[in-house]
Order: sequence, then structure tokens, then C-alpha cells
Amino acid sequence: MLYFIGLGLGDAKDITVKGLEIVKQCSRVYLEAYTSILTVGKDALEEYYGRELILADRDMVEQEADEILKGADVSDVAFLVVGDPFGATTHSDLVLRAVNAGIQYRVIHNASIMNAVGCCGLQLYNFGETVSIVFWTDTWRPESFYDKIKKNRDLGMHTLCLLGEGRKIYEPPRFMTVSQAAEHGEMTWETICVGLARVGAEDQVIRAGTLRQLASCDLGSPLHSMIVTGHLHPLEVDMLRLSVATPDALQDLRMTDSSTYTS
Amino acid sequence: MLYFIGLGLGDAKDITVKGLEIVKQCSRVYLEAYTSILTVGKDALEEYYGRELILADRDMVEQEADEILKGADVSDVAFLVVGDPFGATTHSDLVLRAVNAGIQYRVIHNASIMNAVGCCGLQLYNFGETVSIVFWTDTWRPESFYDKIKKNRDLGMHTLCLLGEGRKIYEPPRFMTVSQAAEHGEMTWETICVGLARVGAEDQVIRAGTLRQLASCDLGSPLHSMIVTGHLHPLEVDMLRLSVATPDALQDLRMTDSSTYTS
Repeated sequence: MLYFIGLGLGDAKDITVKGLEIVKQCSRVYLEAYTSILTVGKDALEEYYGRELILADRDMVEQEADEILKGADVSDVAFLVVGDPFGATTHSDLVLRAVNAGIQYRVIHNASIMNAVGCCGLQLYNFGETVSIVFWTDTWRPESFYDKIKKNRDLGMHTLCLLGEGRKIYEPPRFMTVSQAAEHGEMTWETICVGLARVGAEDQVIRAGTLRQLASCDLGSPLHSMIVTGHLHPLEVDMLRLSVATPDALQDLRMTDSSTYTS
Repeated sequence: MLYFIGLGLGDAKDITVKGLEIVKQCSRVYLEAYTSILTVGKDALEEYYGRELILADRDMVEQEADEILKGADVSDVAFLVVGDPFGATTHSDLVLRAVNAGIQYRVIHNASIMNAVGCCGLQLYNFGETVSIVFWTDTWRPESFYDKIKKNRDLGMHTLCLLGEGRKIYEPPRFMTVSQAAEHGEMTWETICVGLARVGAEDQVIRAGTLRQLASCDLGSPLHSMIVTGHLHPLEVDMLRLSVATPDALQDLRMTDSSTYTS
């Protein structure tokens, strides 16, 4: 059996009891090492699990999948993934290879950023398509995420923006020119956003305010993500007020009708 | 401290190690009893946790919140929620009451249906707004979810439809008249959908096919949910083919351009 086991978002103890039991009895345990990070490293996980972990980077999963699957038809192999195995990144390719090789698989779910963002008080129901924001270089400046944010906002939906490792939300000039976005009509410096860092960890930080206010917030070490809000329900506003970026943040929200705020 | 602890989706062992440690040391432990169910009951949880659980139904949480919060400023109280505490249903009201009473709170995340649906092979990135489909009665037939499915499909997005307890997806006439939906243009009997039952449990069932094919599938006991697909990436189709509702399901998918399928 090939087990895909989610590790959750914080530290070694965020694995489920079921997941930990499986890790302890598998013949080999791989740790997927390319999509996300915990607040603790491989050593801490090995010590807590009492098992040696084999780091599986992207190349290994894509090019040496047979090595991972070896023997999984007659013994148990675990593939550990930060968050949920089918969260922000899926492992469909490895699943399909396993099935084609006659190997059964099972998923042990856990929290991922895709559902844990609900802790900021915005309703998961009201999120549209999630976007990934990649590093801009001098020659590569993909803008497709603008359109997705716009489509979501046009429908009143919030947009979860996943920022790569090393990305800090207080460096907006490095991933977007806000004035450009404003030209497109997607958002302005006054759009209400939520910055999240290390969600699920002991030292998680959530800050809500205008993009302008967030731009001067230091949320500390990665991982960071950001939500561009759509229409806000009053209860959502009340929750965001628990995490204001500056003392005066969110004070300018105007009630536009009986049930929604906008900015 | 008031702890909101997610229990995940399957059985008693789907709690995280961190969550279990907290449950064992809290002075009182409540079990939220109105939004969802595990495959095991309160008794099994009490036996596994070694703790008495106080069932908190919707009335109690809304009207006797003070009772739940009592003493949480000086001792630890746990509030257990199937799935994630901020998944399909949020507990913003209880959070706000706690904060207003000067009580700190912390969230121990877990998988919820909102992210675990990724196990069917559809990319979570590509889901639009989630909809809840409620029971229709002779006099109350809300149709707002049609519009949301249509908006998502117009954008090529998948729609997760949460069906209430007791709802079976093979009873479509009871929650929607498909011919009605077809009139609106949202979907037809030939739209590719995915039926999911007991996601995360040992006996979970996933079935993919046209709505017509799914209508004759018995997925067994609750909880059920359904995904109405938007545009399908070839890798998503490959994954769905692992879970076909009938041997010939998904065979008619036509490739419309280099990267997407439609039905």
C-alpha cells in the first residue's frame, strides 16, 4: 500500500494519530520536499516519528517514481506531504503510476492552506479560484493572476493568493505593480486584503487592512499568503477587526447595503 | 484558553497528535454536534480520548455560549468540530464572544471536506464558490445554487455542492429537477459530476460520470457531496477515470483544445 499522508501546517505534532501510526509501521517513509515547509525541519520530524525520512525533491518524484513505488505492492510505503496530499499541489502523477503498477493507495488527509485560511474569519464558501503568484524576473512577468482576481472580485468572491517560499507580502513591488492592477480595475491600494504568515503554527500572524497598510507590515518568516477580499459580510468584517494591520485599519469600511461591505 | 480543535473526517484517530494532547488536558471538552458527522459516534470518541464529551447542539452554542466559555480565561476548554473548525461552517460567533470576554483562543486545524475533495483528482485551485444544497419541501424550493453553479461553470470552475445529512446524491429529484437546471443552462444530465461519500473514512466512495450515470449509483450512508465539474484538465480526467460510475463512464469526453476537456 502507498500511503499519502498529510502533515498539516505547523510542526511534527500536527500529523494525525492515524498518520503517525502508519508512519511508524511503513517499510520506507518519503518526505516530499518541494512544495511547502513546516516550521520544523526534517531532523525534528525524524526524531519525533522515530523514523528515517527520505527526502523526495521534485526531480525524484518525477524521474525516480519507480524507486518510491518499489515494493509497495507487498509492503507499506509512506509519502509525507506538508499540508494535505491533495491541497495546493496534487500528486496525481504518483497516484496514476501506482495504480498502473497495481499498487493500492490511500490518503490520510490533514489541514492545508486551502482550508486553514478560514481561521482569518473569511468564509471558505466565498472564495473563488485560488491563484499562485510567482516571482517576477526582469524578463518574465506573468500577469494572468490579475484576471483571476478580477473575475473573483466581479462575483464578490475572495481570492487566496499563494506566494512562493521566500515571498514576503510586504514586498508587493516585487510581485506586482499595484498601480498596474489598479489600471486593470482589479484592485487598488485601498482594497481590503489579509496577509497570513505561518498559518497553523504557534507563531502564525494574520493582518487585515488595505493593501497600503499591509505593505508596511512585517509578517516575519515564510510561508506567506494573501487574500484579496471580495464582498465582505458584516460577520467577516467583525472577525477581520480582530487582526487589524494598524489601529485604524478597516475603519473606513462603508456599508453598501444591509448585508455586505465593500471598499 | 479556548481551543477549537478539528477532528478531521473519518474516525477517532483522525484527530492530530497535538489536538489529542490538548483534549486530554482540558477541563471541559465540548463536541459540536450540528454541522457534520464522523463515521463513529460520541461514545467511540469518548472511549478513545478517555474524556467525557459534552454535546453542543446549535441552540447551546448560540444561546448558552457563556456556559461554554465559563472559566476559559483561567483554564483550558476544548470545542471539538468535525472537519476543520473554520471549514464548511465557521464558528466566528463563538470566537467573537470569547475575544469580547477577554478569553484567548487557538485553532488546531484538520482536514475538512473543503480541501479533502482534492482526493478525487480535481485540482482545488480550479474550484469556484462552494454551494450548499438544502432539502426542498413542498413550499420552499430555493434555487440560488443554480446561479452559483452557472457562474462557476461559465468560468470553467468546478463547484463543490455540500449536501445535508441524510441527503443521498442518487436522489436528485429530491434536491433538484435536472431538467430545470438544464433550462437555465447550468448543467444537463450529461454534465460530468463526481459523487463523494464519507470522504476520509475507510469506506469512502468516489464515483465520476455524467449526472445521469451518477443518478443510479448507490454511494451508501452519508455524508454525501457532489462536484459539478467545469473545464477538465487531461490529468484531472485521468484521475476521474480511476473512479468511474459505470464501465463506460467518461468515454465520451471530447478534447476541445490542447489542454481542456468539456462535456
